[in-house]
Amino acid sequence: MISRRTIGRLSLYRRLLNEMQAEGSLSVYSHDLAAKAGVTAAQVRRDVMYVGYTGSPTRGYSVSGLAEAIGTFLDAPEPQSVALVGVGNLGRAILAFFSGRRPKLSVVATFDSDPNKIGRVIHGCRCYAVDEMETRLPEMGVGVAILTVPAGAAQGVAEMLVRAGVRGILNFAPVPLRLPQTVFVEDIDMTVSLEKVAYFARQGAARKELGR
Amino acid sequence: MISRRTIGRLSLYRRLLNEMQAEGSLSVYSHDLAAKAGVTAAQVRRDVMYVGYTGSPTRGYSVSGLAEAIGTFLDAPEPQSVALVGVGNLGRAILAFFSGRRPKLSVVATFDSDPNKIGRVIHGCRCYAVDEMETRLPEMGVGVAILTVPAGAAQGVAEMLVRAGVRGILNFAPVPLRLPQTVFVEDIDMTVSLEKVAYFARQGAARKELGR
Repeated sequence: MISRRTIGRLSLYRRLLNEMQAEGSLSVYSHDLAAKAGVTAAQVRRDVMYVGYTGSPTRGYSVSGLAEAIGTFLDAPEPQSVALVGVGNLGRAILAFFSGRRPKLSVVATFDSDPNKIGRVIHGCRCYAVDEMETRLPEMGVGVAILTVPAGAAQGVAEMLVRAGVRGILNFAPVPLRLPQTVFVEDIDMTVSLEKVAYFARQGAARKELGR
Repeated sequence: MISRRTIGRLSLYRRLLNEMQAEGSLSVYSHDLAAKAGVTAAQVRRDVMYVGYTGSPTRGYSVSGLAEAIGTFLDAPEPQSVALVGVGNLGRAILAFFSGRRPKLSVVATFDSDPNKIGRVIHGCRCYAVDEMETRLPEMGVGVAILTVPAGAAQGVAEMLVRAGVRGILNFAPVPLRLPQTVFVEDIDMTVSLEKVAYFARQGAARKELGR
């Protein structure tokens, strides 16, 4: 099975190719794409083999052709519906961020437990009660969820999502989820990330002062 | 040198310990902390050795004692100042998210190139012009930055940050940064993460349908 790192790199290549296309580039060599993506040219060529695309030794890859081949590989034939659970500050921002960003992935509903939010339309998405998830999500054909609830609520809500048929969760709640292996979870823990940066920034500054 | 993964886990343990403390727990065994963090007990014990803390074989670790020991190890003696560059939807949300979250890490200033934002106070932080970074940041003693600018601006802004003395960057801009090795960069690419989740959610659903 293809690794999550490969999928992550293919997604990045596509975005870089889209940018090149917008700038008017027609073709790109693997080593140029590699430099932009921060990987080796050999890595790019191996990854591109997965999507079954071939470039020309003299002109490299067609920018639009490779972007399209990656899209065919990564995207579902029909758009995938996404739900966002937890419409606090972070949830609202994530919603705004993803709004219209990828045509094949659209947030179709949000869920919250706060009666002041339920029934409202936020960034174009209606907010439903968390209790309704298990009926609404299968109706809407949602298989992917973004979790932006507080840490204490995350495990319970994640289990409801799984019962409702969700098979992939992007988890912003700062707690590891314990779920069946058939469910794919990607964690984004912004507090841990910022603490890491702060720690290594201090070490870097110390190294610099020591003249190393 | 201690790895970024170890620092990430220590940060996670501390948060889990803070939660346990809020719930009234006085002590915790390494295997309980490990289960909450999604790692092995042996891993927890190795990581805790770095901070020079020892538990009791019969009662485990003191919850408050270990949280404090991790804090002494991870945090700077004095609070570290953070700047956020790019006050769009995402930047504003990140700012709200980190506002007052960690006493030892505070966002003291924001920067943007939009004249409508410059001079305003957003979530308690004044917004300055990007051009002012190279003078303002050293004055404010900022060594850590959160980058929430569009992809096209990221590399240029990151180089300005480094010239201004920043040694750690939490990069939300969807582009890899090319910076000197003395600068620590942690990337959070939300689009790549969501595309990964969507891809594997489809595979999981397909495996389920096939009865595997």
